[in-house]
Amino acid sequence: MVHVGGVTVTGRSVAQNAQLALLLEVSGTPKPGNVDREREYDDLRFEHFMAGAVGARSGLDQAAAGDSIGPAFETAVEGMAGQSGGNTQFGALLVLTPLVATAADGRLSPSGADAVVRETTVEDAAAFYRAFEHVDVAVDDPPDGLEPLDVRRGSDAVPELRARDMALFDVMESSADIDGVAAEWVSGFERVFEASEWLLDRSGPVANRASEVFLELLAAEPDTFVVTRQDRETAEEVQERAQAVLDGDGDATDLAEEFVRRDINPGTTADLVAGSLFVALERGLDV
Amino acid sequence: MVHVGGVTVTGRSVAQNAQLALLLEVSGTPKPGNVDREREYDDLRFEHFMAGAVGARSGLDQAAAGDSIGPAFETAVEGMAGQSGGNTQFGALLVLTPLVATAADGRLSPSGADAVVRETTVEDAAAFYRAFEHVDVAVDDPPDGLEPLDVRRGSDAVPELRARDMALFDVMESSADIDGVAAEWVSGFERVFEASEWLLDRSGPVANRASEVFLELLAAEPDTFVVTRQDRETAEEVQERAQAVLDGDGDATDLAEEFVRRDINPGTTADLVAGSLFVALERGLDV
Repeated sequence: MVHVGGVTVTGRSVAQNAQLALLLEVSGTPKPGNVDREREYDDLRFEHFMAGAVGARSGLDQAAAGDSIGPAFETAVEGMAGQSGGNTQFGALLVLTPLVATAADGRLSPSGADAVVRETTVEDAAAFYRAFEHVDVAVDDPPDGLEPLDVRRGSDAVPELRARDMALFDVMESSADIDGVAAEWVSGFERVFEASEWLLDRSGPVANRASEVFLELLAAEPDTFVVTRQDRETAEEVQERAQAVLDGDGDATDLAEEFVRRDINPGTTADLVAGSLFVALERGLDV
Repeated sequence: MVHVGGVTVTGRSVAQNAQLALLLEVSGTPKPGNVDREREYDDLRFEHFMAGAVGARSGLDQAAAGDSIGPAFETAVEGMAGQSGGNTQFGALLVLTPLVATAADGRLSPSGADAVVRETTVEDAAAFYRAFEHVDVAVDDPPDGLEPLDVRRGSDAVPELRARDMALFDVMESSADIDGVAAEWVSGFERVFEASEWLLDRSGPVANRASEVFLELLAAEPDTFVVTRQDRETAEEVQERAQAVLDGDGDATDLAEEFVRRDINPGTTADLVAGSLFVALERGLDV
């Protein structure tokens, strides 16, 4: 390991840090409602996340090598999907891919990331749509007027993307108010960068910090994946319950057991944690 | 995923399967005495194994690409060591590297692996010795007359290796009676291949199978890492206690808690499990 300005920098490459971020994210325990080291669902298990992180690596390598974000993301998703648990890290990869490209380009900052996502093209959007053909992802119905661009159409929607000249950034912008990952894309990954500072400021095992930061993010805003799979009311309850744990009025492990029982998975918040772990690792978080 | 002759074969490469084997090994819980998903040591944590598996990948890629086993192993160890927990997977990589080379060569069988390790050279042995400079590994004193070849001498021992014309296979042969991984090298990886069949024959989550197979291997022979760090008496007690759990006279989780408390880590048995997971994945173990 090399020490630069008091910060420990390991010899890991950008893509290796992204893969490690995926693995550390799921290692954070407890992480109420999501798969963690001590909780899993019968059909979505810890081991599926291990295999997902192994498979995603080629796409992350592609992004680090300067390939376009859309195709790199599609490769990552296709590799991630090579296990029997289904969608493990689709959202996390959607956060990580542009951040990997930004870091490999030596400009890992909110403005750097913002510039990278604004450079995306219609071809990136087409690859993003094709990625939905590799794995089932729970998504909302599209807003009125955007039915032809329903992501569930996969590559069938590509002619419509071209007709409307929609770049991947435009696609994200169109769902930024209903999807927490898309919201990051259009805000310079604001919450991801903020949470990376929380990770760096804390001490102790990284997995514990990831679990704590997850709870803080969860308490700050409703998780859009919960809105999609359940409803806004449930997402707001989840947010309040997370805040209660932070206030000392509840136990994180009890909450984790309850959310798993109720099949409430705040997956978008987990995606943001994966992104913030990556940024923190790039900035010297020591594992 | 492609189905060949009833066996599910994912699109993972040989090196990806080896990396996944490292991750699944540490995901097996309980695994009495070793780091698992629910137990860790203050200075050797689950997250260190995640980072170790990420870092080891370049060396595994090297072995899969047909590079010599010694240098590939050294690269894997150097990458594995890029985390603050110290030695996480040295022994597992010593099992995996020749198996990866064998699998990449399309001859993954005991006789194929035997042929591969017998082809190793003095240069492989030199790289193996250099690998000890990247990380602290608990080892026994060398047998009488082999002090100049103490692995703890690292590259200082290389002239002696050359003088004696010792290939890596010869080095392993010289410690096969005191080291369970070396014993695999000189026996066509007999226990690894046998345990891979146990993994394939069982059903249920792979992490559970890994934990069960760990216990079976532990009950079958004394763990040489326990002999090294404690003594033969302790290793035999560990073996008996594992057998008692298999016989229904004890609980695996209680045993795990006790061994962690007593700092008894049957690490060699874990190395064999990593190897057997790799062979099983190559042979179609579905994750």
